[in-house]
Amino acid sequence: METETDNMTLGCFGLPGSFTAEALASLFPGQDRHTAYFGTFEELVEAVGSGRVRCGVLPIENSSTGGITEVYDLLRGSRCFITGEKCLSVEQYLMGLPGAALQEIRCVYSHPQGFRQSRDFFQSHPEMECIPHFSTAQSADFVSRQGRRDQAAVAGRLAARIYGLQILAGPINTNKANCTRFFVISGQEETIRGADKITLVLSLPHEAGSLYRALGCFAEGGLNLMNLESRPREDHPFEYFFHIDVTGSLEDPAVQGALKKLQESSLSCRILGNYLADRGGRS
Amino acid sequence: METETDNMTLGCFGLPGSFTAEALASLFPGQDRHTAYFGTFEELVEAVGSGRVRCGVLPIENSSTGGITEVYDLLRGSRCFITGEKCLSVEQYLMGLPGAALQEIRCVYSHPQGFRQSRDFFQSHPEMECIPHFSTAQSADFVSRQGRRDQAAVAGRLAARIYGLQILAGPINTNKANCTRFFVISGQEETIRGADKITLVLSLPHEAGSLYRALGCFAEGGLNLMNLESRPREDHPFEYFFHIDVTGSLEDPAVQGALKKLQESSLSCRILGNYLADRGGRS
Repeated sequence: METETDNMTLGCFGLPGSFTAEALASLFPGQDRHTAYFGTFEELVEAVGSGRVRCGVLPIENSSTGGITEVYDLLRGSRCFITGEKCLSVEQYLMGLPGAALQEIRCVYSHPQGFRQSRDFFQSHPEMECIPHFSTAQSADFVSRQGRRDQAAVAGRLAARIYGLQILAGPINTNKANCTRFFVISGQEETIRGADKITLVLSLPHEAGSLYRALGCFAEGGLNLMNLESRPREDHPFEYFFHIDVTGSLEDPAVQGALKKLQESSLSCRILGNYLADRGGRS
Repeated sequence: METETDNMTLGCFGLPGSFTAEALASLFPGQDRHTAYFGTFEELVEAVGSGRVRCGVLPIENSSTGGITEVYDLLRGSRCFITGEKCLSVEQYLMGLPGAALQEIRCVYSHPQGFRQSRDFFQSHPEMECIPHFSTAQSADFVSRQGRRDQAAVAGRLAARIYGLQILAGPINTNKANCTRFFVISGQEETIRGADKITLVLSLPHEAGSLYRALGCFAEGGLNLMNLESRPREDHPFEYFFHIDVTGSLEDPAVQGALKKLQESSLSCRILGNYLADRGGRS
């Protein structure tokens, strides 16, 4: 999907018109010409890790449906660092061919998340068959190319504009406070002025109280836990990695002390990034 | 999908031949004639909650791919209780029509988890297109009905037997220590002799240290944390419910004390069940 890339290119997950493209545009305004699009999380993370693109933007968590586990697992195993985050209010629309009417729609394409986020709408439209597609933007592109009036896509408003579709209903997401959080990732560790949020991944001894003691290092150091996501350790059934977001700067001696204690009590502890928290899109 | 049900009927997620059906058969041997199959998690949870079936079996977590978030979200909002668990070693096989050869296969159907668990196999077989289907057993049924030699399904060995397919390769799951954990759920709270594991769901004040203090109640009461899964609170972006498994019996006064303290420091705390831990399939 990507064309030529160089070390000034930005990498974007998905297609033009995707929610990630929207997040990228707000983080790096006016960089459309220098953006390469990647069809899978894996390809993007690989391009960023190997330095083929300057940095990449990809979703990590949705406020209605939760963490995107595949991205957690990829970042943990990659050479990438998190250098920023962006929270974007996500509104899903039903869109069809220009001139099509809502009552004509029988087949709807979207990413499964698009359907999950809009479940009340589809429960009240049993005449519409929901067909999973690779992404919201790709489903808009697909419906546009198919040229059938009984087909529609669930995607963001930007996708309707880019693929020449008409909004038939929306926003149709059940939860109107629906946000997605995106990470900016880079192949190099960066010191970011004013950084106030840390993401790290821990592996703890499989013994009683180990997570409690780890969280105690944060509490004693005055770091506030913002998020905790457990992911399985594939080679140790029903043991876990913990992906943790805490407030703080790596330049703060209290934080350094807390992390030192944490490292001593962990099997492994890797800092994935220290960046500026995005508080804008949160409320 | 279900036919007649009564209060002796067992509810099973998925189709005959699914991994859940295998788990159910090992929990309730010889009950095939009294089993109703449900196509979605939601239908099964509703049937169990309303008492239309005696109890139900559904997957909650896979050791390679993690928690099944939809089931967490459904159980939290349901009237069901967890009355048992079963851990099953899961082996994925590639299966096609009798007489088909591995080299002929071009289209493979499975649940997305079947593909994720077998990603190394499909990376080395780029000639095979992976097409997402509703479940592993349903994809075996589909391939069997289609009758095309270039199609295959990824499913369990039992599905091959039930749908008359031939194993072409396998086990093809990347992680050979691949287990899935299943819950038995019931519409009524049951006191289970020897119960030694508790599942509960917490909602905590959105303030520093609240999770640390909650885990402290367990640590002080001698309860060991087995699992922690965070799920978004839809109406409060980037706040979470915590689904927690701990060792212990609700009849133990130390456990009662710990839970009382926990309830005092939580916004909400609901015990979803106290049941016998399955240690059999864990290693």
